[in-house]
Amino acid sequence: MSHEARFDSLNLTLPDAPKPAFVYRSIVISGQHVYVSGHGPILPDGSWIKGVVGRDIDLEAGKNAARQTGLAMLATLRAELGSLDKIKRIVKTLGMVNTAPDFYDHPKVINGFSELMADVFGVEAGIGARSAVGMGPLPGNIAVEIEAIFELA
Amino acid sequence: MSHEARFDSLNLTLPDAPKPAFVYRSIVISGQHVYVSGHGPILPDGSWIKGVVGRDIDLEAGKNAARQTGLAMLATLRAELGSLDKIKRIVKTLGMVNTAPDFYDHPKVINGFSELMADVFGVEAGIGARSAVGMGPLPGNIAVEIEAIFELA
Amino acid sequence: MSHEARFDSLNLTLPDAPKPAFVYRSIVISGQHVYVSGHGPILPDGSWIKGVVGRDIDLEAGKNAARQTGLAMLATLRAELGSLDKIKRIVKTLGMVNTAPDFYDHPKVINGFSELMADVFGVEAGIGARSAVGMGPLPGNIAVEIEAIFELA
Repeated sequence: MSHEARFDSLNLTLPDAPKPAFVYRSIVISGQHVYVSGHGPILPDGSWIKGVVGRDIDLEAGKNAARQTGLAMLATLRAELGSLDKIKRIVKTLGMVNTAPDFYDHPKVINGFSELMADVFGVEAGIGARSAVGMGPLPGNIAVEIEAIFELA
Repeated sequence: MSHEARFDSLNLTLPDAPKPAFVYRSIVISGQHVYVSGHGPILPDGSWIKGVVGRDIDLEAGKNAARQTGLAMLATLRAELGSLDKIKRIVKTLGMVNTAPDFYDHPKVINGFSELMADVFGVEAGIGARSAVGMGPLPGNIAVEIEAIFELA
Repeated sequence: MSHEARFDSLNLTLPDAPKPAFVYRSIVISGQHVYVSGHGPILPDGSWIKGVVGRDIDLEAGKNAARQTGLAMLATLRAELGSLDKIKRIVKTLGMVNTAPDFYDHPKVINGFSELMADVFGVEAGIGARSAVGMGPLPGNIAVEIEAIFELA
């Protein structure tokens, strides 16, 4: 099953691919790799999921923000590459969670992103190396920011 | 116009390439890529721009610190590679800003670095993928730390 | 002297290679590179070195946590690759230290990891590019988390 076929079967609603508002590109292709800029949890209406996880929003809302960040990244990849079938696999994810000082469940939050990638690219190609940590604050007080490296097919 | 010619035309004043004070190298070349260690805002006199952006220093001072970090990285690249013309493009930047908990303008701060790279390498080669986030504290209480990956020509 | 011979001569005690408890892989090999997921300071008994460096634990304990994180990463590399001799060199380290807001000695902490890598892989191959910064909190309140990229021989 191709990544695009799997993507279609999931009936996901993607936001528009976010346009860089500052001095960077959404992705850079270098050799066999796609370097994806830090993405945030932008919704289809253009608003962002904001707040400190463990203080302003809870774990489940944080996980949903990570999933939404993944949807935004999929939108970028489809817009920039034309098709998810151009991708061989996800290589590496850096998951940054805007968290309270006593919140320690960053991996559970970033699973919202990682489970989506596994659904879309399959377990073999969709699960990569990862770090998931607390960081902050994040730009615009978004709840989650995630950057990733993909390998081209 | 070559990167070195563009660099010359900008009349930039670089600090000395900072020597690693700990157990790391300034850069590692691996395949077609140059991995550049985290650099900070070192001034030509060897002192550093310090402080928490949004508390000790303001946005403009933070942006200037990011630009100074870029000047330090250019010094490293010229010292290690011999010429900026060895570089094809900037691939990826991680911009880390030492910020107050209620400061959300990290992308504007890191633009100080990214605008300099666009000036030196040109818009096509000098703008890459990027994340710009709050992190901290940073070593020695520097205001900004930036690491990057470049592709060799 | 091979990496494995050097490793043997050091009489190191490794913990078991930590199994991913969330949606990620310990390593991904992509082209000539090994991307290693964020590792933490897991001890041979399966417990973790926890706490905020500069508040709950001191610099030396933090440095020891970074070294222990390195031992865990060596366990992963040996389990996944079969032999450290598959590795040509360490390319890049991101050292994340769980620190108090007024702690500025992150590089000294992460040296615990970097000195171990230099011991095992030798000075030429074992010292790479690096960033060492404050971040937090970290998952499970661990003291240090480190991710790295290695180049294959």
